[in-house]
Amino acid sequence: MEIGQYIDYTILRPDTTREAIKSLCETAIIENFYAVCIPPIYVNEAVRFLRASSVAICSVVGFPLGYVSTAAKLTEAESLICEGVEELDLVINLCNLKNGEWEKVASEIYQFCILCRRFGVVSKIIIEATLLDTDEIIKICNLCNEVNPDFVKTSTGFTGISIVAQKEKVRLMRDTLREGIKIKVSGGVRSREEAFMFIQDYGVSRIGTSGNLSSKK
Amino acid sequence: MEIGQYIDYTILRPDTTREAIKSLCETAIIENFYAVCIPPIYVNEAVRFLRASSVAICSVVGFPLGYVSTAAKLTEAESLICEGVEELDLVINLCNLKNGEWEKVASEIYQFCILCRRFGVVSKIIIEATLLDTDEIIKICNLCNEVNPDFVKTSTGFTGISIVAQKEKVRLMRDTLREGIKIKVSGGVRSREEAFMFIQDYGVSRIGTSGNLSSKK
Repeated sequence: MEIGQYIDYTILRPDTTREAIKSLCETAIIENFYAVCIPPIYVNEAVRFLRASSVAICSVVGFPLGYVSTAAKLTEAESLICEGVEELDLVINLCNLKNGEWEKVASEIYQFCILCRRFGVVSKIIIEATLLDTDEIIKICNLCNEVNPDFVKTSTGFTGISIVAQKEKVRLMRDTLREGIKIKVSGGVRSREEAFMFIQDYGVSRIGTSGNLSSKK
Repeated sequence: MEIGQYIDYTILRPDTTREAIKSLCETAIIENFYAVCIPPIYVNEAVRFLRASSVAICSVVGFPLGYVSTAAKLTEAESLICEGVEELDLVINLCNLKNGEWEKVASEIYQFCILCRRFGVVSKIIIEATLLDTDEIIKICNLCNEVNPDFVKTSTGFTGISIVAQKEKVRLMRDTLREGIKIKVSGGVRSREEAFMFIQDYGVSRIGTSGNLSSKK
Protein backbone atom coordinates (compact mmCIF):
# COMPACT_ATOMS: atom_id res chain seq x y z
CA MET A 1 0.00 0.00 0.00
CA GLU A 2 1.18 3.52 -0.86
CA ILE A 3 1.05 5.29 2.47
CA GLY A 4 1.87 8.83 1.29
CA GLN A 5 -1.68 9.85 0.45
CA TYR A 6 -2.75 9.09 4.02
CA ILE A 7 -0.17 11.42 5.57
CA ASP A 8 -0.48 14.97 6.91
CA TYR A 9 3.25 15.65 7.30
CA THR A 10 3.40 17.80 10.39
CA ILE A 11 5.57 20.32 12.16
CA LEU A 12 3.95 22.33 14.93
CA ARG A 13 6.82 23.14 17.30
CA PRO A 14 6.67 26.72 18.65
CA ASP A 15 10.20 27.46 17.39
CA THR A 16 9.78 26.17 13.83
CA THR A 17 11.99 28.03 11.36
CA ARG A 18 11.24 28.97 7.76
CA GLU A 19 14.01 26.57 6.71
CA ALA A 20 12.23 23.72 8.50
CA ILE A 21 8.98 24.58 6.69
CA LYS A 22 10.75 24.68 3.35
CA SER A 23 12.37 21.32 4.00
CA LEU A 24 9.04 19.84 5.15
CA CYS A 25 7.37 21.03 1.94
CA GLU A 26 10.17 19.65 -0.23
CA THR A 27 9.93 16.25 1.42
CA ALA A 28 6.15 16.28 1.12
CA ILE A 29 6.46 16.84 -2.65
CA ILE A 30 9.08 14.11 -3.05
CA GLU A 31 7.16 11.59 -0.97
CA ASN A 32 3.78 12.55 -2.43
CA PHE A 33 2.25 13.18 1.00
CA TYR A 34 -1.37 14.29 1.07
CA ALA A 35 -0.72 17.49 3.04
CA VAL A 36 1.62 19.46 5.23
CA CYS A 37 0.29 20.55 8.63
CA ILE A 38 2.05 23.73 9.78
CA PRO A 39 1.86 26.71 12.18
CA PRO A 40 -0.57 29.47 11.13
CA ILE A 41 2.13 32.05 10.50
CA TYR A 42 3.69 29.91 7.75
CA VAL A 43 0.59 29.26 5.63
CA ASN A 44 1.42 32.19 3.37
CA GLU A 45 4.87 30.85 2.62
CA ALA A 46 3.80 27.25 2.24
CA VAL A 47 1.44 28.41 -0.51
CA ARG A 48 4.53 29.66 -2.31
CA PHE A 49 6.67 26.58 -1.61
CA LEU A 50 3.90 24.21 -2.76
CA ARG A 51 2.72 26.06 -5.83
CA ALA A 52 2.46 23.63 -8.74
CA SER A 53 2.42 20.62 -6.42
CA SER A 54 -0.59 18.55 -5.35
CA VAL A 55 0.32 18.72 -1.64
CA ALA A 56 -2.47 20.34 0.38
CA ILE A 57 -1.84 22.94 3.09
CA CYS A 58 -3.32 22.29 6.50
CA SER A 59 -3.06 24.47 9.62
CA VAL A 60 -4.52 24.60 13.11
CA VAL A 61 -7.04 26.77 14.99
CA GLY A 62 -7.25 27.29 18.75
CA PHE A 63 -4.27 25.03 18.98
CA PRO A 64 -3.37 23.15 21.14
CA LEU A 65 -5.46 24.06 24.21
CA GLY A 66 -8.77 24.99 22.58
CA TYR A 67 -9.84 27.48 25.24
CA VAL A 68 -9.67 30.76 23.38
CA SER A 69 -13.07 32.24 22.57
CA THR A 70 -15.12 31.12 19.58
CA ALA A 71 -14.73 34.63 18.17
CA ALA A 72 -10.93 34.35 18.34
CA LYS A 73 -11.02 30.92 16.68
CA LEU A 74 -13.23 32.11 13.84
CA THR A 75 -11.01 35.16 13.30
CA GLU A 76 -7.95 32.89 13.09
CA ALA A 77 -9.74 30.55 10.68
CA GLU A 78 -10.94 33.37 8.41
CA SER A 79 -7.51 34.88 8.08
CA LEU A 80 -5.93 31.48 7.28
CA ILE A 81 -8.58 30.85 4.64
CA CYS A 82 -7.75 34.21 3.07
CA GLU A 83 -4.09 33.19 2.97
CA GLY A 84 -4.87 30.00 1.06
CA VAL A 85 -5.15 27.22 3.63
CA GLU A 86 -6.99 24.15 2.30
CA GLU A 87 -7.61 22.18 5.50
CA LEU A 88 -8.12 23.41 9.07
CA ASP A 89 -7.84 21.40 12.29
CA LEU A 90 -9.85 23.01 15.12
CA VAL A 91 -9.36 22.11 18.79
CA ILE A 92 -12.75 21.93 20.52
CA ASN A 93 -13.30 23.72 23.81
CA LEU A 94 -12.60 20.94 26.31
CA CYS A 95 -13.47 23.20 29.25
CA ASN A 96 -17.02 23.53 27.97
CA LEU A 97 -17.16 19.80 27.27
CA LYS A 98 -16.00 18.91 30.79
CA ASN A 99 -18.58 21.33 32.22
CA GLY A 100 -21.27 19.46 30.29
CA GLU A 101 -22.03 22.57 28.24
CA TRP A 102 -22.62 20.64 25.03
CA GLU A 103 -24.59 23.41 23.35
CA LYS A 104 -21.55 25.69 23.54
CA VAL A 105 -19.33 22.93 22.17
CA ALA A 106 -21.79 22.27 19.34
CA SER A 107 -22.31 25.92 18.49
CA GLU A 108 -18.58 26.51 18.06
CA ILE A 109 -18.07 23.43 15.87
CA TYR A 110 -21.12 24.37 13.83
CA GLN A 111 -19.90 27.91 13.15
CA PHE A 112 -16.44 26.61 12.22
CA CYS A 113 -17.83 23.99 9.83
CA ILE A 114 -20.17 26.50 8.15
CA LEU A 115 -17.19 28.81 7.58
CA CYS A 116 -15.04 26.01 6.14
CA ARG A 117 -17.83 24.74 3.90
CA ARG A 118 -18.51 28.20 2.51
CA PHE A 119 -14.92 28.42 1.28
CA GLY A 120 -14.40 24.77 0.31
CA VAL A 121 -11.93 24.19 3.14
CA VAL A 122 -11.72 20.72 4.68
CA SER A 123 -12.78 20.81 8.36
CA LYS A 124 -11.23 18.61 11.03
CA ILE A 125 -12.45 18.62 14.62
CA ILE A 126 -9.80 17.70 17.21
CA ILE A 127 -11.51 16.10 20.21
CA GLU A 128 -8.36 15.36 22.28
CA ALA A 129 -9.53 11.79 22.84
CA THR A 130 -6.76 10.94 25.31
CA LEU A 131 -8.40 13.31 27.82
CA LEU A 132 -11.93 11.95 27.29
CA ASP A 133 -13.72 8.94 28.75
CA THR A 134 -15.94 6.52 26.80
CA ASP A 135 -19.17 8.45 27.40
CA GLU A 136 -17.58 11.73 26.37
CA ILE A 137 -16.17 10.24 23.16
CA ILE A 138 -19.58 8.82 22.22
CA LYS A 139 -21.28 12.16 22.96
CA ILE A 140 -18.83 14.30 21.00
CA CYS A 141 -18.91 11.88 18.05
CA ASN A 142 -22.71 11.93 18.02
CA LEU A 143 -22.57 15.70 18.11
CA CYS A 144 -20.21 15.61 15.12
CA ASN A 145 -22.66 13.28 13.36
CA GLU A 146 -25.14 16.16 13.51
CA VAL A 147 -22.76 18.97 12.53
CA ASN A 148 -21.01 16.93 9.84
CA PRO A 149 -17.35 17.99 9.69
CA ASP A 150 -15.15 16.30 7.08
CA PHE A 151 -12.93 14.70 9.73
CA VAL A 152 -12.79 14.05 13.43
CA LYS A 153 -9.18 14.06 14.64
CA THR A 154 -8.02 12.25 17.74
CA SER A 155 -5.39 14.47 19.34
CA THR A 156 -3.20 17.55 19.31
CA GLY A 157 -0.11 15.61 20.35
CA PHE A 158 0.40 18.06 23.25
CA THR A 159 -1.15 16.13 26.15
CA GLY A 160 1.82 13.85 26.70
CA ILE A 161 -0.41 10.79 26.14
CA SER A 162 0.05 8.80 22.93
CA ILE A 163 -3.08 7.80 21.00
CA VAL A 164 -1.27 4.57 20.10
CA ALA A 165 -1.46 3.59 23.77
CA GLN A 166 -5.21 4.27 23.70
CA LYS A 167 -6.07 2.91 20.29
CA GLU A 168 -9.39 1.42 21.41
CA LYS A 169 -10.63 4.99 21.58
CA VAL A 170 -10.10 5.20 17.82
CA ARG A 171 -12.22 2.05 17.39
CA LEU A 172 -14.93 3.69 19.50
CA MET A 173 -14.78 6.82 17.35
CA ARG A 174 -15.12 4.75 14.16
CA ASP A 175 -18.03 2.76 15.61
CA THR A 176 -19.84 5.94 16.66
CA LEU A 177 -19.20 8.30 13.75
CA ARG A 178 -21.30 8.14 10.59
CA GLU A 179 -19.54 6.49 7.67
CA GLY A 180 -19.22 9.77 5.78
CA ILE A 181 -17.09 11.37 8.51
CA LYS A 182 -13.43 10.41 8.25
CA ILE A 183 -10.95 9.98 11.09
CA LYS A 184 -7.51 11.54 11.37
CA VAL A 185 -5.20 9.97 13.95
CA SER A 186 -2.33 12.02 15.35
CA GLY A 187 -0.25 12.35 18.47
CA GLY A 188 2.09 9.43 18.84
CA VAL A 189 2.18 7.63 15.47
CA ARG A 190 5.88 7.03 14.96
CA SER A 191 6.18 4.00 12.68
CA ARG A 192 4.84 2.67 9.36
CA GLU A 193 3.43 -0.32 11.23
CA GLU A 194 1.35 1.88 13.54
CA ALA A 195 0.11 3.91 10.57
CA PHE A 196 -0.87 0.76 8.62
CA MET A 197 -2.62 -0.64 11.67
CA PHE A 198 -4.83 2.44 12.03
CA ILE A 199 -5.59 2.60 8.30
CA GLN A 200 -6.31 -1.09 7.75
CA ASP A 201 -7.77 -2.22 11.07
CA TYR A 202 -9.36 0.96 12.48
CA GLY A 203 -10.82 2.59 9.36
CA VAL A 204 -8.64 5.67 9.66
CA SER A 205 -8.32 7.94 6.59
CA ARG A 206 -5.49 10.25 7.58
CA ILE A 207 -2.41 10.12 9.82
CA GLY A 208 -0.79 13.25 11.25
CA THR A 209 2.87 12.66 11.96
CA SER A 210 6.15 14.50 12.09
CA GLY A 211 8.01 11.37 11.03
CA ASN A 212 8.65 10.57 7.39
CA LEU A 213 6.78 7.26 7.15
CA SER A 214 6.98 7.02 3.35
CA SER A 215 7.13 3.59 1.75
CA LYS A 216 10.11 4.77 -0.29
CA LYS A 217 12.37 4.70 2.77
CA MET B 1 8.74 36.15 54.22
CA GLU B 2 5.08 36.12 53.15
CA ILE B 3 5.20 34.38 49.81
CA GLY B 4 1.55 34.82 48.77
CA GLN B 5 1.98 38.25 47.18
CA TYR B 6 4.58 36.81 44.79
CA ILE B 7 2.28 34.10 43.46
CA ASP B 8 0.20 33.91 40.27
CA TYR B 9 -1.82 30.85 41.22
CA THR B 10 -2.23 29.07 37.93
CA ILE B 11 -4.42 26.55 36.15
CA LEU B 12 -4.07 26.32 32.38
CA ARG B 13 -4.96 22.72 31.56
CA PRO B 14 -7.11 22.38 28.41
CA ASP B 15 -9.82 20.48 30.30
CA THR B 16 -10.15 22.85 33.26
CA THR B 17 -13.66 22.84 34.73
CA ARG B 18 -15.62 25.75 36.20
CA GLU B 19 -15.45 23.95 39.56
CA ALA B 20 -11.64 23.94 39.36
CA ILE B 21 -11.63 27.69 38.62
CA LYS B 22 -13.95 28.35 41.54
CA SER B 23 -11.77 26.33 43.86
CA LEU B 24 -8.62 28.08 42.57
CA CYS B 25 -10.18 31.48 43.25
CA GLU B 26 -11.30 30.47 46.74
CA THR B 27 -7.82 29.26 47.63
CA ALA B 28 -6.28 32.42 46.17
CA ILE B 29 -8.48 34.55 48.47
CA ILE B 30 -7.70 32.45 51.55
CA GLU B 31 -3.96 32.38 50.87
CA ASN B 32 -3.83 36.04 49.80
CA PHE B 33 -2.16 35.22 46.47
CA TYR B 34 -1.39 38.12 44.17
CA ALA B 35 -3.32 36.76 41.20
CA VAL B 36 -4.96 33.79 39.55
CA CYS B 37 -3.76 32.87 36.05
CA ILE B 38 -6.53 31.13 34.11
CA PRO B 39 -7.74 30.13 30.62
CA PRO B 40 -9.25 32.98 28.56
CA ILE B 41 -12.75 31.54 28.56
CA TYR B 42 -12.98 31.76 32.37
CA VAL B 43 -12.00 35.41 32.82
CA ASN B 44 -15.63 36.47 32.89
CA GLU B 45 -16.46 34.08 35.69
CA ALA B 46 -13.32 34.76 37.70
CA VAL B 47 -14.36 38.42 37.78
CA ARG B 48 -17.51 37.25 39.53
CA PHE B 49 -15.75 34.80 41.88
CA LEU B 50 -13.15 37.40 42.92
CA ARG B 51 -15.42 40.41 43.31
CA ALA B 52 -14.66 42.13 46.62
CA SER B 53 -11.25 40.42 46.89
CA SER B 54 -7.84 41.91 46.15
CA VAL B 55 -6.77 38.94 43.99
CA ALA B 56 -5.91 40.05 40.44
CA ILE B 57 -7.08 38.19 37.33
CA CYS B 58 -4.42 37.17 34.83
CA SER B 59 -4.88 35.30 31.56
CA VAL B 60 -2.84 34.31 28.52
CA VAL B 61 -2.59 35.38 24.87
CA GLY B 62 -1.26 33.30 21.96
CA PHE B 63 -0.75 30.56 24.50
CA PRO B 64 1.27 28.34 24.61
CA LEU B 65 2.81 28.19 21.11
CA GLY B 66 2.86 31.89 20.19
CA TYR B 67 2.55 31.36 16.44
CA VAL B 68 -0.91 32.71 15.73
CA SER B 69 -0.91 36.04 13.89
CA THR B 70 -0.40 39.34 15.67
CA ALA B 71 -3.93 40.29 14.62
CA ALA B 72 -5.33 37.19 16.33
CA LYS B 73 -3.32 37.90 19.49
CA LEU B 74 -4.50 41.50 19.69
CA THR B 75 -8.12 40.43 19.13
CA GLU B 76 -7.79 37.93 21.98
CA ALA B 77 -6.21 40.55 24.24
CA GLU B 78 -8.84 43.18 23.50
CA SER B 79 -11.71 40.86 24.27
CA LEU B 80 -10.11 39.75 27.56
CA ILE B 81 -9.56 43.37 28.55
CA CYS B 82 -13.25 44.05 27.89
CA GLU B 83 -14.12 41.14 30.17
CA GLY B 84 -12.11 42.56 33.04
CA VAL B 85 -8.70 40.91 32.93
CA GLU B 86 -6.05 42.83 34.89
CA GLU B 87 -2.85 41.14 33.70
CA LEU B 88 -2.04 39.49 30.37
CA ASP B 89 0.80 37.07 29.58
CA LEU B 90 1.66 37.08 25.86
CA VAL B 91 3.74 34.35 24.20
CA ILE B 92 6.14 35.91 21.70
CA ASN B 93 6.42 34.52 18.18
CA LEU B 94 9.36 32.15 18.54
CA CYS B 95 9.25 31.27 14.83
CA ASN B 96 10.03 34.87 13.94
CA LEU B 97 12.71 34.99 16.62
CA LYS B 98 14.41 31.84 15.35
CA ASN B 99 14.29 33.24 11.81
CA GLY B 100 16.13 36.34 13.07
CA GLU B 101 13.13 38.52 12.19
CA TRP B 102 13.52 40.73 15.24
CA GLU B 103 11.51 43.60 13.80
CA LYS B 104 8.44 41.36 13.58
CA VAL B 105 9.02 40.16 17.15
CA ALA B 106 9.41 43.75 18.35
CA SER B 107 6.41 45.08 16.45
CA GLU B 108 4.11 42.49 18.01
CA ILE B 109 5.34 43.09 21.54
CA TYR B 110 5.09 46.84 21.00
CA GLN B 111 1.48 46.68 19.81
CA PHE B 112 0.55 44.42 22.71
CA CYS B 113 2.19 46.67 25.30
CA ILE B 114 0.55 49.80 23.87
CA LEU B 115 -2.84 48.09 24.12
CA CYS B 116 -2.23 46.98 27.71
CA ARG B 117 -0.97 50.40 28.76
CA ARG B 118 -3.96 52.16 27.27
CA PHE B 119 -6.28 50.13 29.51
CA GLY B 120 -4.08 49.92 32.60
CA VAL B 121 -3.50 46.20 32.16
CA VAL B 122 -0.20 44.70 33.37
CA SER B 123 1.78 43.29 30.41
CA LYS B 124 3.96 40.18 30.66
CA ILE B 125 6.05 38.93 27.75
CA ILE B 126 6.70 35.17 27.75
CA ILE B 127 10.02 34.50 26.00
CA GLU B 128 10.08 30.68 26.45
CA ALA B 129 13.64 30.87 27.77
CA THR B 130 14.13 27.09 27.85
CA LEU B 131 14.09 27.09 24.02
CA LEU B 132 16.52 30.03 23.70
CA ASP B 133 20.30 30.20 23.79
CA THR B 134 22.33 32.87 25.60
CA ASP B 135 22.53 35.24 22.62
CA GLU B 136 18.81 34.99 21.98
CA ILE B 137 17.97 35.70 25.62
CA ILE B 138 20.19 38.78 25.64
CA LYS B 139 18.66 40.03 22.39
CA ILE B 140 15.04 39.54 23.42
CA CYS B 141 15.71 41.14 26.83
CA ASN B 142 17.35 44.14 25.16
CA LEU B 143 14.38 44.39 22.84
CA CYS B 144 12.10 44.37 25.92
CA ASN B 145 14.25 47.12 27.44
CA GLU B 146 13.17 49.28 24.51
CA VAL B 147 9.49 48.33 24.46
CA ASN B 148 9.14 48.38 28.25
CA PRO B 149 6.61 45.73 29.28
CA ASP B 150 5.82 45.44 33.00
CA PHE B 151 7.22 41.89 33.19
CA VAL B 152 9.27 39.45 31.19
CA LYS B 153 8.16 35.88 31.95
CA THR B 154 10.41 32.87 31.52
CA SER B 155 8.16 30.07 30.23
CA THR B 156 4.76 28.71 29.33
CA GLY B 157 5.37 25.44 31.16
CA PHE B 158 4.46 23.55 27.95
CA THR B 159 7.91 22.77 26.54
CA GLY B 160 8.59 19.86 28.87
CA ILE B 161 11.74 21.61 30.15
CA SER B 162 11.72 23.00 33.70
CA ILE B 163 13.07 26.51 34.21
CA VAL B 164 14.41 25.30 37.59
CA ALA B 165 16.84 23.08 35.67
CA GLN B 166 17.97 26.13 33.67
CA LYS B 167 17.94 28.74 36.40
CA GLU B 168 21.07 30.49 35.13
CA LYS B 169 18.90 31.75 32.28
CA VAL B 170 16.88 33.67 34.88
CA ARG B 171 20.12 35.24 36.16
CA LEU B 172 20.97 36.25 32.60
CA MET B 173 17.52 37.80 32.17
CA ARG B 174 17.90 39.79 35.42
CA ASP B 175 21.38 40.96 34.40
CA THR B 176 20.16 42.09 30.97
CA LEU B 177 16.77 43.62 31.74
CA ARG B 178 16.49 47.18 33.03
CA GLU B 179 15.72 47.40 36.74
CA GLY B 180 12.19 48.68 36.10
CA ILE B 181 11.17 45.53 34.24
CA LYS B 182 10.16 42.72 36.57
CA ILE B 183 10.61 38.99 36.02
CA LYS B 184 7.98 36.29 36.38
CA VAL B 185 9.28 32.73 36.63
CA SER B 186 6.99 29.86 35.69
CA GLY B 187 7.14 26.35 34.33
CA GLY B 188 8.55 23.97 36.90
CA VAL B 189 8.47 25.78 40.27
CA ARG B 190 7.05 23.12 42.54
CA SER B 191 8.30 23.96 46.06
CA ARG B 192 8.50 26.88 48.49
CA GLU B 193 12.28 26.53 48.46
CA GLU B 194 12.51 26.99 44.71
CA ALA B 195 10.19 29.98 44.87
CA PHE B 196 12.24 31.59 47.67
CA MET B 197 15.46 30.95 45.76
CA PHE B 198 14.18 32.79 42.68
CA ILE B 199 12.78 35.69 44.72
CA GLN B 200 15.75 36.18 47.04
CA ASP B 201 18.74 35.18 44.89
CA TYR B 202 17.56 35.90 41.33
CA GLY B 203 15.61 39.13 41.76
CA VAL B 204 12.34 37.58 40.62
CA SER B 205 9.10 39.46 41.39
CA ARG B 206 6.45 36.91 40.55
CA ILE B 207 6.13 33.11 40.48
CA GLY B 208 3.57 31.31 38.33
CA THR B 209 2.70 27.95 39.80
CA SER B 210 -0.16 25.49 40.00
CA GLY B 211 1.03 24.35 43.42
CA ASN B 212 -0.23 25.99 46.61
CA LEU B 213 3.10 27.24 47.99
CA SER B 214 1.57 29.39 50.71
CA SER B 215 3.49 29.88 53.94
CA LYS B 216 0.37 28.93 55.85
CA LYS B 217 0.73 25.28 54.83
